[in-house]
Amino acid sequence: MRTAYQEQLTGLSVQLGEMCGLAVVAMERATQALLEADLTLAEQVIADHEHIIARNRQVEQSALRILALQQPVATDLRTVVGSIHIAADIDRMGALAVHVAGISRLRHPDCALPADVRASFAEMGARAVQLATTAREVLLTRDPDKAARLRDEDDAVDAEHRHLFTLLIDHKWQTGVCSAVDVALLGRYYERFADHAVEIGKRVVFEATGGLPMHKQMA
Amino acid sequence: MRTAYQEQLTGLSVQLGEMCGLAVVAMERATQALLEADLTLAEQVIADHEHIIARNRQVEQSALRILALQQPVATDLRTVVGSIHIAADIDRMGALAVHVAGISRLRHPDCALPADVRASFAEMGARAVQLATTAREVLLTRDPDKAARLRDEDDAVDAEHRHLFTLLIDHKWQTGVCSAVDVALLGRYYERFADHAVEIGKRVVFEATGGLPMHKQMA
Repeated sequence: MRTAYQEQLTGLSVQLGEMCGLAVVAMERATQALLEADLTLAEQVIADHEHIIARNRQVEQSALRILALQQPVATDLRTVVGSIHIAADIDRMGALAVHVAGISRLRHPDCALPADVRASFAEMGARAVQLATTAREVLLTRDPDKAARLRDEDDAVDAEHRHLFTLLIDHKWQTGVCSAVDVALLGRYYERFADHAVEIGKRVVFEATGGLPMHKQMA
Repeated sequence: MRTAYQEQLTGLSVQLGEMCGLAVVAMERATQALLEADLTLAEQVIADHEHIIARNRQVEQSALRILALQQPVATDLRTVVGSIHIAADIDRMGALAVHVAGISRLRHPDCALPADVRASFAEMGARAVQLATTAREVLLTRDPDKAARLRDEDDAVDAEHRHLFTLLIDHKWQTGVCSAVDVALLGRYYERFADHAVEIGKRVVFEATGGLPMHKQMA
């Protein structure tokens, strides 16, 4: 009986790892669609989001089942409740990839990005995908040291995001209001995607140590 | 013993109602600070967010305590787990009010809003505050009909948000890229604030009916 219970807990981690893998792919494709104005890829990201939504429900149902039938306490209880939070974070990461894809689709056949911010988004996209990849490893290994490193990786995304805003608000922006609005919102989507990956890390640290996760200071 | 347990469950609803009340006040003040370029009020919203963060932790700790000690099942289990989700939603609502206040502070002594979108933000702000107020009532009454009505109230926020974007992307926008970026982000903050209020309603319906909450389709 105890073995079945442990399997259920492990199963929850595996479900989360797979779900996070879907968010990695979603942001990878959304970034490629954005950089290359690839409508087919953008639409695929949007359509595939239903798989992430379905996984979110499965995780929550699995967690409720474990809570009802196994009545975990202490660390196991934190892990199960943490899984619900983490699934919600991954679900949002997927939704943010969909938002990126949505802007690519809206501007097609044009590229939503003016030439002078393409490198910035290539960088932010790569870092966001890296963060989600690290978060996925953290979910599968439950390594609190790696989880804590997510915050450092996020600093690079934040720095790129700030750089983007200096480009937007200096007086040399040449490509008009509409593209500035797209770029501002896109920057926000990447920043939030990275924040959710950091939240996952904080949850895993919390589960391992019992210390409540610290809130990221809002800018 | 059963009575103490019921009291704990009721206590959770009361905690959530009070927490949502703080989000109502935060968005009310953030909107006033935005419309009137009121730095003191903006800073108060930012400082007061710590109270919402503290409430979020209290709700999660209360929920974990109930799960560990009372081991609820069925409807009660959904209510307790739902409380954790709802507290996270309210926490984000507070954070979004802080983002609104942050833009007011950044632009002070100027007003972040050009004259021709002030009415739009007054409208969106009032509707967002109304949504949060309804969400608070729903948390205290657990009335699923009122909860379902939150979605209709959100439609008005979405409509105003779309209207704002038509103002931004038509070619008559006169106040430059920087203010367009502020307005786009502010619009997004109000829209997300309203979305979280709708999520609270869906959670309450879910708890009452056992039907999984439907995902809002991402634009």
